[in-house]
Amino acid sequence: MSRKIQIFDTTLRDGEQCPGASMNTQEKLVVTRQLLRLGVDVIEAGFPISSPGDFQSVQRIAAEVGDKAIVCGLTRAVEKDIDVCAEALKGCPRPRIHTGIGVSPEHLMYKFRGMSLDEAIDRGVHAVKHARKYVDDVEFYAEDAGRASFEDLARMIEAVIAAGATVVNIPDTTGYNMPWHFGERIKYLCDHVRGIEDVTISVHCHNDLGMATALAMEGVRNGATQVECTINGLGERAGNTAMEEIVMGIRMHEKELDAHTDINTKEFLQASRLISSITGFPVQPNKAIVGSNAFAHSSGIHQDGVIKQRETYEIIDPADVGFNGSSIVLTARSGHAALRHRLELLGYTIENDEQFEQIHKDFLDLADRKKEVLDEDLHSLMGERERSESALYVLKATQISCGQPSTPTATVTLIDPFGKERTACDFGTGPVDAVCKAINKIVRADCELTEFSVQAVTHGIDALGEVTVRITAPDGQVFSGRGSECDITVSSAMAYLNAINRMLRKQS
Amino acid sequence: MSRKIQIFDTTLRDGEQCPGASMNTQEKLVVTRQLLRLGVDVIEAGFPISSPGDFQSVQRIAAEVGDKAIVCGLTRAVEKDIDVCAEALKGCPRPRIHTGIGVSPEHLMYKFRGMSLDEAIDRGVHAVKHARKYVDDVEFYAEDAGRASFEDLARMIEAVIAAGATVVNIPDTTGYNMPWHFGERIKYLCDHVRGIEDVTISVHCHNDLGMATALAMEGVRNGATQVECTINGLGERAGNTAMEEIVMGIRMHEKELDAHTDINTKEFLQASRLISSITGFPVQPNKAIVGSNAFAHSSGIHQDGVIKQRETYEIIDPADVGFNGSSIVLTARSGHAALRHRLELLGYTIENDEQFEQIHKDFLDLADRKKEVLDEDLHSLMGERERSESALYVLKATQISCGQPSTPTATVTLIDPFGKERTACDFGTGPVDAVCKAINKIVRADCELTEFSVQAVTHGIDALGEVTVRITAPDGQVFSGRGSECDITVSSAMAYLNAINRMLRKQS
Repeated sequence: MSRKIQIFDTTLRDGEQCPGASMNTQEKLVVTRQLLRLGVDVIEAGFPISSPGDFQSVQRIAAEVGDKAIVCGLTRAVEKDIDVCAEALKGCPRPRIHTGIGVSPEHLMYKFRGMSLDEAIDRGVHAVKHARKYVDDVEFYAEDAGRASFEDLARMIEAVIAAGATVVNIPDTTGYNMPWHFGERIKYLCDHVRGIEDVTISVHCHNDLGMATALAMEGVRNGATQVECTINGLGERAGNTAMEEIVMGIRMHEKELDAHTDINTKEFLQASRLISSITGFPVQPNKAIVGSNAFAHSSGIHQDGVIKQRETYEIIDPADVGFNGSSIVLTARSGHAALRHRLELLGYTIENDEQFEQIHKDFLDLADRKKEVLDEDLHSLMGERERSESALYVLKATQISCGQPSTPTATVTLIDPFGKERTACDFGTGPVDAVCKAINKIVRADCELTEFSVQAVTHGIDALGEVTVRITAPDGQVFSGRGSECDITVSSAMAYLNAINRMLRKQS
Repeated sequence: MSRKIQIFDTTLRDGEQCPGASMNTQEKLVVTRQLLRLGVDVIEAGFPISSPGDFQSVQRIAAEVGDKAIVCGLTRAVEKDIDVCAEALKGCPRPRIHTGIGVSPEHLMYKFRGMSLDEAIDRGVHAVKHARKYVDDVEFYAEDAGRASFEDLARMIEAVIAAGATVVNIPDTTGYNMPWHFGERIKYLCDHVRGIEDVTISVHCHNDLGMATALAMEGVRNGATQVECTINGLGERAGNTAMEEIVMGIRMHEKELDAHTDINTKEFLQASRLISSITGFPVQPNKAIVGSNAFAHSSGIHQDGVIKQRETYEIIDPADVGFNGSSIVLTARSGHAALRHRLELLGYTIENDEQFEQIHKDFLDLADRKKEVLDEDLHSLMGERERSESALYVLKATQISCGQPSTPTATVTLIDPFGKERTACDFGTGPVDAVCKAINKIVRADCELTEFSVQAVTHGIDALGEVTVRITAPDGQVFSGRGSECDITVSSAMAYLNAINRMLRKQS
């Protein structure tokens, strides 16, 4: 039996932390269910001390996961962080606390204001011991390990293993290493750290130079048995190792690496689309494994030579990562049972019959306009419901006239937080400009629209248009908003209002 | 002096070849000028035998480049290909012919129907000798070298060097190799191939497992002195090594690699945006080096700790790759001279005063609606002009009414190829659906809309919306179309009509 490589997903922590990708609890639960369908080994659910919202999310995710995976919470090497994390994981059948401290000269100097290595090691050891009071499974990260000397890193790792760490995480926090550097680093630890054979070595790589997957691969080759990664490589700055890439790479070279994962790779495409839709981060067509061009024959090339071409140019069968999966199609004639079953399979919980009737009504409304309702449409529909339920201002109606030559004009009616209907109109350079200005006349929000994009949710002219906007508040904070409707001018109004609602809630 | 690594750009060949990324000659010239601003060493301009259009593009690009870079044309190991390529490069001061043949068992078996290695080597040798009759600089590619045995590959490379090849290109055509495999392969060639010290070793890697940059880096570490790459990693399937990644990686580890490039890295962001806008392929926010999130401080985070944070988490100064560059702003009050100067700097040729007056009129029209006109807007404006000049059907007017609750309705007036005005209206699920259906009523094109996306060209609510659509013809061919206008419903109509015009021209 080859080595089992544990897949540690941090989409909900490192991924969610990057500007514009924040998710609410409901969205995190939908992602959690997708991670369970993928069969990941560990889910890093959040950073409980960072906010009450994050604390609650970790609790809800832990409850959702049950014993199907290890649930991990992040902490600094600070007692209070660990106490709060342990509290969030209470009752979780397979809890893990992830704690750690910087080890590189740069981090000790700038982040820890000149702390000595010995002091950092002491704090790390103390944190591990403190965490072990709560749980048996403690992972330790040596932040910025990629820029530390081999010797310093080895000393810290040896000390935390002696203190009771069960997993040691070696991150290349700044994405600075070359693949061979990182491989040598892992090998050095395997050869020089007492007790390392009794713990799991984890790698956590960043993509600042575009090599996060290669670094993780060198880690696995040299002794790591856990990889920290995210769907689509989402994460701070240029992101993390992409789960779909590292898993398929290991599979292609299983023998040489003496390694395998237990991931259900057929879920990759669905997972990628889900994360893209929730965060509004597009997946570029030439993204490895899950991009729309990643396989020649997924791009509409159907010439005779396609089979010959596959063996010649493609190393992976697209079906293995979820392309050409038969997407279940619902129509206006699909019954209640079919809709409910499909929603449950996609990971949504129906709370009661009344709620389901509402969803069914929205579904029929959509099915009337679109002939076929696909899984992607259902995700959009459920996302839209979620967003409107928690809104301060609700969009009641829009009326738009545009074209060329003409002056685009929009009239919007909102329901304000006091339940009062308010209507305003404005004109602009286009319908989106006009509708956003009309909303601004009512809400009077102080913000700048910094990004605007629309993606069709499914193929076809009649597809839902999912609009993502990012707005920047005067203090530099970024808020994203989404809206999906067949009419993209309506989606735009929804997305803009969604972003403003998020900003107002944060400010209130 | 450290080794100079030549940057061989193949955005216009391997990049342009991927489904949906095809560019017309005008667009290729704009890219060429951007490549010259980057200071690339070699520009692969196309595959002249593949079509008369490609042949002409190579001629035009070669004329544009002059002696500022080597211009390279691709061929198979076939005399006719080489003759046509030489013809396209005639008069070019620094021409290179790029020829080659498969070397892996898979390629010999499937692509060359059971050809023996000896026969393939003979054909390669013959092709190199034939190419040398025309030019002094001949590059040979051993297709699918990544899956060939070291010995087979070495035999072929030694033979083509003896035949007169000046550059030998080792491609991992299918993206199958692990980084260390590829490094060992290059090292083996350096150690075992007679004459290899007299030629340039080039690497050409694919990103199917997400490691194209890492492979190229291992190539450089082990002896390669030319890297083939594209902007944004554009290319077939999951694409190629991204120029911005390999160049910045080399720069970060210059000493260890004993290597440098002569690329003007401050042009990376501009180059990335240009390619994204021309192809309609979005750049994901977490793309290394050029993504909108690639640097923490480019994402609107302006807290006090930003300087401390930079030294702690960022290894590259964002300004080094073109972030925060002062984008020149034009307004309605900018004079003729300012506009003309800016367009020329951006790489556009003004053919005559009459044409410039037209452009200036379009510019004023835009500047009236938008307060500030940025470089990105000028690219869109020039692209739109180009598209409408070569159109079969031209959009004259659109009139749209939509919103919710309402039935989105569009009326469009087109000028048909005979100069006749034709008007039609239709309703749909949204304004895009309605406007496309109305166009279809006039054009009666048989196609399916398979992708639709909108990106704001610049920040701000009043930005131009650049719409990209992809349509699929019944034979599976993909055509992309773009349109940019402040009104995204108008952009959508333009983009759809642009794609249809391309399809009709191909079919006629």
